[in-house]
Amino acid sequence: MSQANERIETLTKQVKESTLIADELNPKKSLEFYRQKSTICPKQVENTIYGYNSHYMKRVYEVIKNSPQIFRHPHLEEWSREVYRYMSFRQLVQFDKEKNMSYEDYKKDPHIATIMGTALYQWNASHCIKHGVHFYLYAKTIINLGTQKHEKYVQRSIDLSDVGSFSLTELGHGSNVRSILTTATYDTATNEFIINTPNDLALKWWIGATAQLANQTVVWAQLLLNGENHGVHAFLVPIRSLEDHQPMPGVVIGDCGSKVGLDGIDNGFLQFTNYRVPYDSLLDKFSQIEDGKFKTSIPSADRRFGLQLGSLSGGRIVISMHAGSNAMMALTIATRYACIRKQFGLPGQPENSIIEYPLVQYRLMSSLAKYAVQQVAALNLNQLWDHNQENVLDLKNNLINQLHAQSSVMKAICSWQAKDIIQISREILGGHGYSSYNRIGMLYRDNDINITWEGDNNVLLQQTSKFLLDAARTLMKGKEIKYPTIKFLTVEPVEGQKWDAKEVAQFRNPENILRAMEWRVNLLLQRSGLKLQENLGSHPDPFAAWNGTQVFYLNSLALAYGEVYQAQEFISALNKIHHEQTKEFMLNLFELWGLNIIINDLGTFREGDFVESDTAKQMKDRVVELIKALKDEAIGFLDVVCPPDHILGSPFGAKDGDIYNKYLTYVRGAKNSYSRVDWWNEIHPKKQ
Amino acid sequence: MSQANERIETLTKQVKESTLIADELNPKKSLEFYRQKSTICPKQVENTIYGYNSHYMKRVYEVIKNSPQIFRHPHLEEWSREVYRYMSFRQLVQFDKEKNMSYEDYKKDPHIATIMGTALYQWNASHCIKHGVHFYLYAKTIINLGTQKHEKYVQRSIDLSDVGSFSLTELGHGSNVRSILTTATYDTATNEFIINTPNDLALKWWIGATAQLANQTVVWAQLLLNGENHGVHAFLVPIRSLEDHQPMPGVVIGDCGSKVGLDGIDNGFLQFTNYRVPYDSLLDKFSQIEDGKFKTSIPSADRRFGLQLGSLSGGRIVISMHAGSNAMMALTIATRYACIRKQFGLPGQPENSIIEYPLVQYRLMSSLAKYAVQQVAALNLNQLWDHNQENVLDLKNNLINQLHAQSSVMKAICSWQAKDIIQISREILGGHGYSSYNRIGMLYRDNDINITWEGDNNVLLQQTSKFLLDAARTLMKGKEIKYPTIKFLTVEPVEGQKWDAKEVAQFRNPENILRAMEWRVNLLLQRSGLKLQENLGSHPDPFAAWNGTQVFYLNSLALAYGEVYQAQEFISALNKIHHEQTKEFMLNLFELWGLNIIINDLGTFREGDFVESDTAKQMKDRVVELIKALKDEAIGFLDVVCPPDHILGSPFGAKDGDIYNKYLTYVRGAKNSYSRVDWWNEIHPKKQ
Ligand SMILES: Cc1cc2nc3c(=O)[nH]c(=O)nc-3n(C[C@H](O)[C@H](O)[C@H](O)COP(=O)(O)OP(=O)(O)OC[C@H]3O[C@@H](n4cnc5c(N)ncnc54)[C@H](O)[C@@H]3O)c2cc1C
Ligand SMILES: Cc1cc2nc3c(=O)[nH]c(=O)nc-3n(C[C@H](O)[C@H](O)[C@H](O)COP(=O)(O)OP(=O)(O)OC[C@H]3O[C@@H](n4cnc5c(N)ncnc54)[C@H](O)[C@@H]3O)c2cc1C
Repeated sequence: MSQANERIETLTKQVKESTLIADELNPKKSLEFYRQKSTICPKQVENTIYGYNSHYMKRVYEVIKNSPQIFRHPHLEEWSREVYRYMSFRQLVQFDKEKNMSYEDYKKDPHIATIMGTALYQWNASHCIKHGVHFYLYAKTIINLGTQKHEKYVQRSIDLSDVGSFSLTELGHGSNVRSILTTATYDTATNEFIINTPNDLALKWWIGATAQLANQTVVWAQLLLNGENHGVHAFLVPIRSLEDHQPMPGVVIGDCGSKVGLDGIDNGFLQFTNYRVPYDSLLDKFSQIEDGKFKTSIPSADRRFGLQLGSLSGGRIVISMHAGSNAMMALTIATRYACIRKQFGLPGQPENSIIEYPLVQYRLMSSLAKYAVQQVAALNLNQLWDHNQENVLDLKNNLINQLHAQSSVMKAICSWQAKDIIQISREILGGHGYSSYNRIGMLYRDNDINITWEGDNNVLLQQTSKFLLDAARTLMKGKEIKYPTIKFLTVEPVEGQKWDAKEVAQFRNPENILRAMEWRVNLLLQRSGLKLQENLGSHPDPFAAWNGTQVFYLNSLALAYGEVYQAQEFISALNKIHHEQTKEFMLNLFELWGLNIIINDLGTFREGDFVESDTAKQMKDRVVELIKALKDEAIGFLDVVCPPDHILGSPFGAKDGDIYNKYLTYVRGAKNSYSRVDWWNEIHPKKQ
Repeated sequence: MSQANERIETLTKQVKESTLIADELNPKKSLEFYRQKSTICPKQVENTIYGYNSHYMKRVYEVIKNSPQIFRHPHLEEWSREVYRYMSFRQLVQFDKEKNMSYEDYKKDPHIATIMGTALYQWNASHCIKHGVHFYLYAKTIINLGTQKHEKYVQRSIDLSDVGSFSLTELGHGSNVRSILTTATYDTATNEFIINTPNDLALKWWIGATAQLANQTVVWAQLLLNGENHGVHAFLVPIRSLEDHQPMPGVVIGDCGSKVGLDGIDNGFLQFTNYRVPYDSLLDKFSQIEDGKFKTSIPSADRRFGLQLGSLSGGRIVISMHAGSNAMMALTIATRYACIRKQFGLPGQPENSIIEYPLVQYRLMSSLAKYAVQQVAALNLNQLWDHNQENVLDLKNNLINQLHAQSSVMKAICSWQAKDIIQISREILGGHGYSSYNRIGMLYRDNDINITWEGDNNVLLQQTSKFLLDAARTLMKGKEIKYPTIKFLTVEPVEGQKWDAKEVAQFRNPENILRAMEWRVNLLLQRSGLKLQENLGSHPDPFAAWNGTQVFYLNSLALAYGEVYQAQEFISALNKIHHEQTKEFMLNLFELWGLNIIINDLGTFREGDFVESDTAKQMKDRVVELIKALKDEAIGFLDVVCPPDHILGSPFGAKDGDIYNKYLTYVRGAKNSYSRVDWWNEIHPKKQ
């Protein structure tokens, strides 16, 4: 016990009037110790992670800093959802007033908005989504699917004269939205549509910014004309009066109630009863009714719907960045904490910072590597999308298919990874991770919905695997693949091939990692193709055969392709880094990322001895080396990519390392922190 | 579009005055359809899962049913933490009044309390933990570590004259509690202890039932006598006056504030300043001060502390059951939902219940298998512990070592698995999983702390691997292992051995699965031993070598042993089941559980071709068959193990399947469901 004894004596001597943390355990110094080890170039890191518009993020951080009364952190103040929603609205208005960016700016480079949105999401997910629903779902739909007569609504949305929402999902249908039940029946006599909710399963459900806020919505419904269904179309309709903000006659609006997260968003439901709207409500870029007849430039209703929804994929694509931000913020909190937190040590010695334990390093550094690789790919995917805004509705634009496959798998990988990384971060904080003040709990809950909305992950992955199977079919027909990210696909059997890399020097060559990832995609693609054929032989219908080929086959294939895509993007980013230590660090991250993937799916990679048993052992040793090296650069890296304290809002993530004092300030300042409960006399009725 | 069209027409016809769900999509019928498929014997399932005391659970469910005004579900009512804590206290008192079980009953069979606690935990975690802190941490410590003079406090705790808590953790120390900083200095002059909090890191932190409730606590502190530290001891002290419930002079009590979950528990912090307590406060079963000298029956301070804490392991052991309940309830909600929820289908056909998709089956049935296997082992572990209450402080009781290793790994596996299973269940519910009313969000948050408290999982696993390494040392010395669960250990090299099972008939033999699990433990043990030796050669100190052998080695070893242990217990339970279909079903669960483990760690199992490549492929096919078969029994099984609706408290988990109507009732009945916000006129300032 001499160790504890000594320490206590020293500490007891140091206690002065105040009971601030004793110097010996100075948390600031501990964090500074690891910060000093960093050798990377902040500017090159910033460019790699946030791209050419990164300076716009600082503008967002400034706007928030300048109105501290409005931009307050819900998790630090225990808001009810009523207060949260109100504050979220105030923030929307305030940010809009101060953001200093016009629609013209946006049109010049839509990627500015993506980057500013990233910063806004880092500040608060609910607030950012509130923006997103209005500007990127509501207004964007009018822009993409409306015609000239609808332009005034775009203008009204830009200056917030209208607040709009997006009503697609119903109580009964979210993934299979082609089968929604809401109807818009054309009335030839009056040139109107009559919108109806035929039953409860057809209630529009979960509609963001609708329970309290929106006066307009885009409602999706089956267009019925003379008893014939022409498929799902979008209608721009008022749902509340601008005069008194009451629902329009024929519209019932309700609140979906308490949620797992995103309490700042007022998700609502909508019921329409013979709600008559003028013909011009139809967003008619692709379909019109003329002389009582349905006309369209895209005859297939499915194709038309797909294209229209596809043009709105921005929301899905940006999730890969948002999820990345969630992961990165949790990781910053946990990594800073791990540098400071002391637990266990040799007898007679000071305790170790927990970051010195390989079990802690492994959890944190593997997560850091995942974040970095995913984020670089996500950034590039978003740029690709943003720079292609002019032709997302161009039927001949073939790259859209690839973009769709990429964005589907990226959304899935990034949202799931963020979930895991946030949970790991929570666990690194031990019991203190269970305090709401650290924001980690809120990050988890707010991130969770990224798994489901804008397409459920497991459903989306099927889009990606379909893209790959189609490519295999192209190859089998002897044709060439035109999509750049999948040029490596082959229908020549790859089983039996060997990996070139056997030892550290070779693991470090990123092309070797990429080759392993590509090999796996080919293996899984070939296996999936065979399995699908086998299933087609034995299953009654193609849909059943398709479904029967998901587990272990198509599902894994899609994810494996997502990893190839990330590797491709990261390698090309690596090639642009010229600062030596930065490059070295990024290379370490990539190597760790790649080796972990191989180790975690070793069963597949050992197939036909592609990776040999001894190589596997060496890879494990190498991982343990890498996490040790990486921990010394982690703080420097996170300092660059993590937003400032007033955005992060986490005492245990404080940049200066003064974490316990900050935490105590919140705890001691919380409501009723030291008070006796009103009902105290019920506790000891007997009082003896 | 004809499919959607037709359906809409039928539905529209069916709409009457009310808009209740149309008959065609009758959710009750959908659930009943799957329920009817079940062939298992409910009684044998109940025995296997809950054991010989299972009827006591029904008593708990009854008590709760009888006071619906007091036993209300927080997630259905959006309670603030103030209300939640108050209601939790009221529930404690009410349950205690109605539970109809005396201390004598408890002493006769402590396992009754464990089973009743399980039911109580299913009702509400906060409520159960409130019981637990008082009866199983506070009172149990007095029973185990006090002497006759302390007995009156046991009595006072039983009739709730006192409410007690357990103060071990400090702001700065949770895992390494040997190094806590709180001191209890013996004052020879007055025969008192003076308790002090030397600095902020020494604040007692997270102490359950303390911010508002407790008037007594057991505080753990370094016992200092004449400048010498005799190690950590437990002291029974008042913290609040029984008269006015104010903190005692010298004690500051604060509230730890808002948490990620368990909002019904009032976790608090404690600061002691020269707080004088009489000598008799020392719980003195093992140490005393006589004539100013320290006396003890266990000379090593570390050993003494270990034994005392070890005797309180009940809290850790029961977590394996609690986590299981969390997993099972989430899974019941998700599985019932999956039978009802329709999404996608063949053109012209009704949509499928999502449980028909193998991707859904895989997620649910693999989780079900994990739950069942874990729960059977957890039950037996708890019985072992409960039936050994008399000798947990017996230094010669060697089985305690094994029990400690088992309970450490079981706590880790069960809490992590529950986390994963709850998340999977959330995702199965799609967007509706994001509604608080389903309880899934709360289950996740309440379960989360099981990963950390009663020993952080990653720290606990090191105890288990140490036990296994010790056993290997025993073997190397040529001695026999006396612990029954690890008789299979060997130091003969196992690399190169082959698995007997190559095809379905052999996968079905549970001994084959067990053998694969055992083989892996031996492999990992042998590899870990070598690695540790290698590290001891290169690392400066044994602690560093130990830490450097965790990732990929000792950590994985501990988990692999946990799986062997579960397999052993499940197989012996299987042998007691005589009803044929029930046995078949349980065997399916076990086979699925085992094959999944092998598939998910195929890299290890392929080592030296223990499992051949072709076998792996066959295992995957078999898994897809198994999940399909299991889905038809799942509802029947969950109906038996899941508590009734009033305990489960989840509209989407409703046993009768009438989920949408129940959900709508909650949503429509929630506060402000249809109201206009007060601040509506701020929304459209321009109003044009
Ligand atoms: C907070 C929140 C905000 C939202 N905001 C909006 C909004 O503003 N506007 C709007 O229109 N919608 C909104 N949504 C709805 C959201 O887009 C849907 O919830 C989402 O698309 C998923 O649909 P679902 O909930 O019907 O899930 P389902 O489609 O019912 O899926 C349930 C489960 O079935 C599985 N599954 C389904 N089909 C298959 C298959 N073929 N193969 C294998 N598995 C399958 C899925 O993997 C999933 O696990 C919001 C939802 C939430 C929770
Ligand atoms: C809601 C709640 C209720 C509680 N109730 C009580 C109560 O009533 N009474 C009470 O006394 N306590 C209570 N606790 C405290 C709880 O027991 C501790 O939080 C827990 O033991 C973990 O300790 P810690 O928080 O200090 O984590 P730390 O020990 O600081 O661990 C932090 C991280 O470091 C890692 N780590 C630490 N050491 C090692 C190592 N050697 N090797 C590798 N990794 C390592 C861990 O894995 C973890 O991820 C409660 C906590 C909570 C959150």
